[in-house]
Amino acid sequence: MSKSLDHSLVTKAPEVEFSELGKGIHRPVIVDIMSQALANPDLLSLAAGFTDNAALPNELVAQLAVEVSSVDRVDAPLQYGTNQGRARLREISGEWMATHPGELCDAFKADECFVCNGSQQALYLAAQVLCNRGDIVLVEEPSYFVCLEMLKGLGLRPIGIPCNREGAIEAEAFAQLLQTLDAAGERERVKAIYLVTYFSNPSSRSMTFLEKETVARTLLEAGYQIPVIEDAAYRELYFDEPHSCPSVLSLAAFDAFPKLYLGTYTKPFATGLKVGYGYCTHPEWLQKMLGIKGHQDFGSAHFNQAIVERAIETGAYAEHLQRIRPLYAEKATKMQAVLEASGLRKLGWEWTPPVGGLIFWLRGPADMDLRIGSVFCNACIEAGVLYVPGDLCFPSGTPWNCARLSTGALDAGKFKEAVSRFAAVAKRLQSGA
Amino acid sequence: MSKSLDHSLVTKAPEVEFSELGKGIHRPVIVDIMSQALANPDLLSLAAGFTDNAALPNELVAQLAVEVSSVDRVDAPLQYGTNQGRARLREISGEWMATHPGELCDAFKADECFVCNGSQQALYLAAQVLCNRGDIVLVEEPSYFVCLEMLKGLGLRPIGIPCNREGAIEAEAFAQLLQTLDAAGERERVKAIYLVTYFSNPSSRSMTFLEKETVARTLLEAGYQIPVIEDAAYRELYFDEPHSCPSVLSLAAFDAFPKLYLGTYTKPFATGLKVGYGYCTHPEWLQKMLGIKGHQDFGSAHFNQAIVERAIETGAYAEHLQRIRPLYAEKATKMQAVLEASGLRKLGWEWTPPVGGLIFWLRGPADMDLRIGSVFCNACIEAGVLYVPGDLCFPSGTPWNCARLSTGALDAGKFKEAVSRFAAVAKRLQSGA
Repeated sequence: MSKSLDHSLVTKAPEVEFSELGKGIHRPVIVDIMSQALANPDLLSLAAGFTDNAALPNELVAQLAVEVSSVDRVDAPLQYGTNQGRARLREISGEWMATHPGELCDAFKADECFVCNGSQQALYLAAQVLCNRGDIVLVEEPSYFVCLEMLKGLGLRPIGIPCNREGAIEAEAFAQLLQTLDAAGERERVKAIYLVTYFSNPSSRSMTFLEKETVARTLLEAGYQIPVIEDAAYRELYFDEPHSCPSVLSLAAFDAFPKLYLGTYTKPFATGLKVGYGYCTHPEWLQKMLGIKGHQDFGSAHFNQAIVERAIETGAYAEHLQRIRPLYAEKATKMQAVLEASGLRKLGWEWTPPVGGLIFWLRGPADMDLRIGSVFCNACIEAGVLYVPGDLCFPSGTPWNCARLSTGALDAGKFKEAVSRFAAVAKRLQSGA
Repeated sequence: MSKSLDHSLVTKAPEVEFSELGKGIHRPVIVDIMSQALANPDLLSLAAGFTDNAALPNELVAQLAVEVSSVDRVDAPLQYGTNQGRARLREISGEWMATHPGELCDAFKADECFVCNGSQQALYLAAQVLCNRGDIVLVEEPSYFVCLEMLKGLGLRPIGIPCNREGAIEAEAFAQLLQTLDAAGERERVKAIYLVTYFSNPSSRSMTFLEKETVARTLLEAGYQIPVIEDAAYRELYFDEPHSCPSVLSLAAFDAFPKLYLGTYTKPFATGLKVGYGYCTHPEWLQKMLGIKGHQDFGSAHFNQAIVERAIETGAYAEHLQRIRPLYAEKATKMQAVLEASGLRKLGWEWTPPVGGLIFWLRGPADMDLRIGSVFCNACIEAGVLYVPGDLCFPSGTPWNCARLSTGALDAGKFKEAVSRFAAVAKRLQSGA
């Protein structure tokens, strides 16, 4: 017989004691930015790094979904797939990779490839298997803020590699940094270097052949033969010309390093399918990441993989890229025109128009504070425009005078209004009004 | 100018030093089992917990994909969604939950709900935010082996709650266990209890109202007001009658506990879409899990969520369940007939035919060793039949005499052959030949 519950046993409200990891977790900024943009249609968002709705292959994906559900029955795309991902998708991704201008390899290995829930999951897995709390990951300044937040969320210390105003790594200062870390007894804590190498988020810069070689040499000269993580999320999204530089996978200068290369079909193709991939040259490193992936989800959505695979195989993916590149190029041209006309340059703002990707990286006068909660940021929200404060892209949290403006989410017809709201705030606050 | 790489700087082959977490990661058994089943069509797999290919809604999902790509354009299902998941899907999931026979609540709260990459991801997130390495999670004996592997992979200690031969929790022994943990100074390390409550994997048992109340009371009487995780993955897959018991979310006995309830649209609907969900009653716990989800993928595939949402909204999901329940019931009936005819009972094997789910849980004579690598297991692989060794479902790794046979992956026409291979091994080895 059931005894009735003795409520005197309940000594407290339901409470949860969190793990060390849990205690350090705060709502990621990316989540807030995406929520604000989705929830408030009057707010013009230059913050969210969305793809353009007009660039989404809705009809194509619908058609591919129908095709894989019938043609592909033997593979049963609605059945579970494997933890590592569809064999044919991993194979064909390697063939596609080899067609990237500049690559020095005929085909990348399917057994080094794994499919994940956007390339973000691969970043997370890599950080988990490489780093203990307090360990260091070297990153460019600026770097991808979602990655920095993730590293900090795991209790890690991203440390910035000195870069010049254009965002190029400064070899001597980098060598100096490695020596300083050595002198501070931190060498053994440096577990990886993370590089965003094609139309970077947020700098929009691409890393040159020479610069990549310099990074490799500087690391080796200082005795840091550490894992290299290359994030090529925006590689396909060039405007007129691809950035013809080999990935770290095929560049001889990186032969001596364990490498993880990250690509994605999310940003350049079907965002809502969330299919990313990684190539890992170190079998044990790969197996450890796959082991954790087995614990997290034991395989990414098989149906989505089948759709992407068919898109590549039928040529629809390549056609889609040809269709959307001019679209993004045109958006960038419009944004550039609007920015030039905004008067921001006269107020001391600087930027270089991007030649690929979705981002304008603006640097205001040195004494400006654009951080979340700053007078400037609050004034922008009040004026109805959102940006990503640039300090989030620097591991140290400084400088405070940069802003990331994305051309992805907003319709180009609204650029003028969004930028004029932003520029009006700048004019008012910089004039000291 | 680029200096050529000085190869004397390369002091060693590319090596990776792993984190404490990484060092403890081994290839999960689930991955091997799924790979073997997918790679070797001659092997008859009673191991893989796949859904039946005949139960997959291929045409339906193709049609829904077309519909959400056109009808649903305002939501842009191929755009990014939010980290927590589509608002309407979370709302309608709550309404659907409330229709489950036995539930005592009119509608479950959308703001307590989050969407994930199968419910497995929610288990992982919960373990991450609740537990430090070495912490304890209480689980039934037997319990879901993928969860046990995941917990061990995170360096945690799953500890088994004593259950009787039918799999019901033994209240006195459970109270005794809690006292023993107390006496050993382990009380503060016990961070959660994990229960698989509907047509459990692997026992196929469902937990009764009385048993749920007993668990709650035993915990409270011992002063363990710990987070309760209820896994209801198989709840929809009943054969003739649902298991009419309230979830821990609506059962008064659990009012005093922080709760996480896990459901899924993967197993009962479209496996390859991998859409699962959780309800978390403790806002801060939920926010911590969402924070880590933001780091892992900042939102599950939006397209898949839109498809599932439309399936529920149009009634197609309910119709699909009505179609597949008899299919799984029929498979279970066939498997039961084949097992009864196999001669295994005469050899001392026991099982209770399931009334829902995909699993037969067999207990061999006490002295048998069915573990991976055992004579029995190797003989089965040689004979061309796969099962999941039951020891994997016990946190302590004992007993060794159980086997999990799944009716999901294999065509019912092959049950007779698969079971006869299994029974032949049993006959040969038990006769000492």
